[in-house]
Amino acid sequence: MRDLQQTSGDVPDLMADIGRNARAASRPLALASTATKNAALEAMATAILVDREQILAANAIDLAGARQGGLAGSFIDRLTLTPERIEAMAAGIRAIAAVKDPVGEVMAEWDRPNGLHIERVRTPLGVIGVIYESRPNVTADAGALCLKAGNAVILRGGSDSLNSSRAIHACLVRGLRQAGLPDHAIQMVPVADRAAVGAMLTGLNGAIDVIVPRGGKSLVARVQNEARVPVFAHLEGLCHVYVDKSADLDMARAIVVNSKMRRTGICGAAETLLIDRSAASTHLAPLLDALKAAGCEVRATEEVRALVPGLASVSETDWSTEYLDAIISVTLVDGVEGAIAHINRWSSAHTEAVVAQDQAVADRFFAEIDSAILLHNASTQFADGGEFGMGGEIGIATGKMHARGPVGVEQLTSFKYRVRGTGQVRP
Amino acid sequence: MRDLQQTSGDVPDLMADIGRNARAASRPLALASTATKNAALEAMATAILVDREQILAANAIDLAGARQGGLAGSFIDRLTLTPERIEAMAAGIRAIAAVKDPVGEVMAEWDRPNGLHIERVRTPLGVIGVIYESRPNVTADAGALCLKAGNAVILRGGSDSLNSSRAIHACLVRGLRQAGLPDHAIQMVPVADRAAVGAMLTGLNGAIDVIVPRGGKSLVARVQNEARVPVFAHLEGLCHVYVDKSADLDMARAIVVNSKMRRTGICGAAETLLIDRSAASTHLAPLLDALKAAGCEVRATEEVRALVPGLASVSETDWSTEYLDAIISVTLVDGVEGAIAHINRWSSAHTEAVVAQDQAVADRFFAEIDSAILLHNASTQFADGGEFGMGGEIGIATGKMHARGPVGVEQLTSFKYRVRGTGQVRP
Repeated sequence: MRDLQQTSGDVPDLMADIGRNARAASRPLALASTATKNAALEAMATAILVDREQILAANAIDLAGARQGGLAGSFIDRLTLTPERIEAMAAGIRAIAAVKDPVGEVMAEWDRPNGLHIERVRTPLGVIGVIYESRPNVTADAGALCLKAGNAVILRGGSDSLNSSRAIHACLVRGLRQAGLPDHAIQMVPVADRAAVGAMLTGLNGAIDVIVPRGGKSLVARVQNEARVPVFAHLEGLCHVYVDKSADLDMARAIVVNSKMRRTGICGAAETLLIDRSAASTHLAPLLDALKAAGCEVRATEEVRALVPGLASVSETDWSTEYLDAIISVTLVDGVEGAIAHINRWSSAHTEAVVAQDQAVADRFFAEIDSAILLHNASTQFADGGEFGMGGEIGIATGKMHARGPVGVEQLTSFKYRVRGTGQVRP
Repeated sequence: MRDLQQTSGDVPDLMADIGRNARAASRPLALASTATKNAALEAMATAILVDREQILAANAIDLAGARQGGLAGSFIDRLTLTPERIEAMAAGIRAIAAVKDPVGEVMAEWDRPNGLHIERVRTPLGVIGVIYESRPNVTADAGALCLKAGNAVILRGGSDSLNSSRAIHACLVRGLRQAGLPDHAIQMVPVADRAAVGAMLTGLNGAIDVIVPRGGKSLVARVQNEARVPVFAHLEGLCHVYVDKSADLDMARAIVVNSKMRRTGICGAAETLLIDRSAASTHLAPLLDALKAAGCEVRATEEVRALVPGLASVSETDWSTEYLDAIISVTLVDGVEGAIAHINRWSSAHTEAVVAQDQAVADRFFAEIDSAILLHNASTQFADGGEFGMGGEIGIATGKMHARGPVGVEQLTSFKYRVRGTGQVRP
């Protein structure tokens, strides 16, 4: 790998090399057996545990730089590695090794009247570019997920985590070598220069098949605006919980509080609570009391405030605000129809939950809302690839093309058709 | 529908209206039953047959304009409607009605240890924008395919076919009405102004989920370069046939001639013939003689020309040229490995065929070439949604995202997750 200290004039050449190397590596990778890929993942997990001291030392350098730069506490927290977080990283790689290998799976097959037999078979996507912020664990997650799906990956992490990411990346490369896979299967952009991101967004002369941005809104928005290759991205998770009059109150209380408060900073956290107007006298006050008791600020319509004193006012902008904080907006709606109308107007199409004992209400909610994930009688915080049994995720997609919802190993694949004949020609 | 004669200053407003109307129509469409959609398709087919005289009269106006404009014969041919072509259009709509409705299909389902039951279920994509050249039949094909998959569609056909397309579109709208579906399910941009295309490529404020360009290279390239929404497109079909030394000569002859000569102007037509060097003495001359006898110009390497006299020379640019004409480039290669190397270097990843009796050769060809469609002992001209049993196609995608190969009804869908719980919250 080239040296870190170079001028941005070298970046286009460097990135073109990285692109060519990734494309070349993607061919043997696409043919690699499940056993070989899993051996590499196992060796990576072991290398990360063996190198934990070196990784922590590299992280200490990054942390010192970030503190000197006066970066925010939440930023420092995401950047920080601990022995426990390193162990979780290794366990995450092993969880991905345990996931079924999608490559080669026959997704569908059929015969034609002329005797042709057609199969649709899963293939790797090819080369994936992952652009992320200063969260060193993404280096391991993204590298492992892409490898399991037979893809080469180009990782471009935040500049403040470069030392940590390089230490982790070195472990990934050792794992590749031990399994006899090419080093270039997982490359890390070795420079902090932002021109490297711009080069990736152009696709590196066709070398990159898809870009995955993983980070805050400004990163994702930049990638979506500038990318000349397909992007798996979600801009935000503006998730709703609707409590129907048929809801069991205890269940509703548990789901509402968990959806909002378990972790407020994740995209699957609820931001708006919709309560059936018919349940205002029975469910409204207990639910809002539970939220307040859990430390949540409640912003409510005038109608709600008249029924439950002491609440802040909600404004129109709240309905489209992803707080990512201990704040929730609340309104009464006219049953499931009102909930559907509110959600279809304001949702970011990420995740919505309905709490109801009435199955017809849940069925209608499921049918008429077009969000990536719909839950009945469960917390929105289950919107997660690990919770879906995918072994991990590289993000949650809210677009409708290719991948939607959690992007795990299977979503990092494409397919091709294999057609077998006995000499057929077309009349 | 607004009048045709308006200034381009009105176009942004007009297009914004069309986008809003499409988005609004997409909701009832997504919920429409299979029976309702099929009733609409059946009524459209009938209306087209009933209105055939009006459609032919409209087409006569377009044809007179095109002739006056001095447009090329192939252009005029694609623009021309005949009673037979109108019948084929109606039959095409009925074939789409006969295809299985993908919407609502549970693609996968599984249980989690915590009792959550997860389903991945097919949904419409939403709103599709189709931009095509002056081929009036695309109006019917694209409208019907999008409707069957539960999508609203915005059609923008070539300006030289506007009268024909409007006459066909009127039949489609009558079919929608008869089935009780919204008129705006299938809208046609009523102006010839090119600014309408530009507006569609921006996505009409999020109203368009995907753009499908259907036409020649310059149209597709413009759409791919300018679109700010996902695009299903293929730039070209640079298809190869490899004849192995194990090939049955008669079968190889039939497949090579059919792949190249059945129709030379389609994207699934072969452009390059690769012959196993070990079969030069047995297969080369008979295959080239058959091509020449069928009226094909053969451009060959010096090695081939030394073995078969009277052939034109091939140059490096031929390997990347989609002739779409009765011309083929030929070279000898070192077995299937040589064929794979040539194809991976020059192919547009559309369709490739191998002719071989040796199964191991076919298996390797299938494994190591990453094109959308691979055929063993069959003609490349089967690369077609109708031939695949999809009831029709809106095009062939050579990208790796979402749809690849023929884009039929099923490929015009997305999916969402339905998660059913009993009060689960995340620990």
